[in-house]
Amino acid sequence: MSLIQVQMFSGRTPEQKRNLVRALTDAFVQTVGSTPDAVDVILTDIEKSDWARGGELFSDKVLGG
Amino acid sequence: MSLIQVQMFSGRTPEQKRNLVRALTDAFVQTVGSTPDAVDVILTDIEKSDWARGGELFSDKVLGG
Amino acid sequence: MSLIQVQMFSGRTPEQKRNLVRALTDAFVQTVGSTPDAVDVILTDIEKSDWARGGELFSDKVLGG
Amino acid sequence: MSLIQVQMFSGRTPEQKRNLVRALTDAFVQTVGSTPDAVDVILTDIEKSDWARGGELFSDKVLGG
Amino acid sequence: MSLIQVQMFSGRTPEQKRNLVRALTDAFVQTVGSTPDAVDVILTDIEKSDWARGGELFSDKVLGG
Amino acid sequence: MSLIQVQMFSGRTPEQKRNLVRALTDAFVQTVGSTPDAVDVILTDIEKSDWARGGELFSDKVLGG
Repeated sequence: MSLIQVQMFSGRTPEQKRNLVRALTDAFVQTVGSTPDAVDVILTDIEKSDWARGGELFSDKVLGG
Repeated sequence: MSLIQVQMFSGRTPEQKRNLVRALTDAFVQTVGSTPDAVDVILTDIEKSDWARGGELFSDKVLGG
Repeated sequence: MSLIQVQMFSGRTPEQKRNLVRALTDAFVQTVGSTPDAVDVILTDIEKSDWARGGELFSDKVLGG
Repeated sequence: MSLIQVQMFSGRTPEQKRNLVRALTDAFVQTVGSTPDAVDVILTDIEKSDWARGGELFSDKVLGG
Repeated sequence: MSLIQVQMFSGRTPEQKRNLVRALTDAFVQTVGSTPDAVDVILTDIEKSDWARGGELFSDKVLGG
Repeated sequence: MSLIQVQMFSGRTPEQKRNLVRALTDAFVQTVGSTPDAVDVILTDIEKSDWARGGELFSDKVLGG
């Protein structure tokens, strides 16, 4: 069993998420061995106002990350 | 101290969540020993469009999990 | 699909862990509905020197939690 | 690299979150050594109806935590 | 910023982990857009005696997952 | 209730961890309001061979992060 949890900024489309979970699962299976059905992926959207680096929220940065 | 974090598909009613946290806490206390007040439970709802198995989102599966 | 992640102090026996995962799974299935095979449980042991409440590590408390 | 993930009850203002991430980052840098840019902070709001202690949701408690 | 956290059974070699983080990062960048430097990956090994499905630890199953 | 989970590279001393949990708790209480006893902190050590940025493990980088 393997679990891949992704936290990323909000705003990806359903099609991007669909492609992402397939690509992550393929990446896992091809590099460490497993079957696709043994890989779960959970996606979590994070707002830029809830993620900081260097003590500053990304929503406050002039250039986002 | 003990922390139980649950990720599950969205859609459970308040009454189901109320019963769930009580039952999980009881299960913990009865099997490994502790007091109920030392057990925290945090519930997180996950949309089927954010959870995949086998590289496919549950929202895309003909039969959900 | 459902995922239950437990963080608890180290020291439980294999038999306690065996009973715990069964009891948590039963608690989940009986209160919110699901099948046992759709429930994953991951246990993580935490040392008392890595868990704090009130700004004090449990390893430093006169009475542990 | 360091990652600080905070789960707290919903309801904090943007200004409180802005101050929180700065203060947590400062606390980290000053006590264990690092540079601010090497510290990420992710904030997650939890509803009182999704957090329990003692088997009871905080939304059901007469006095919240 | 994006964070990919992987929980998997123990036993992968350093070379497998090296390939895994590269492949996951590539998968992320190619499907949802980002730069590699904006993607962190954290790997966590889980013992089969700490992961259960269907209420049974994988260490107790006749056939592991 | 509030939960602060920290993932950081291994190698901090017990005294550094003791100072860290106190400073993080103080930072939380002073910026968003709460009592220290309502703040839990859990520390998790991560090896540089289990954390990657830019698709490369920190254990493989010429200069660590």
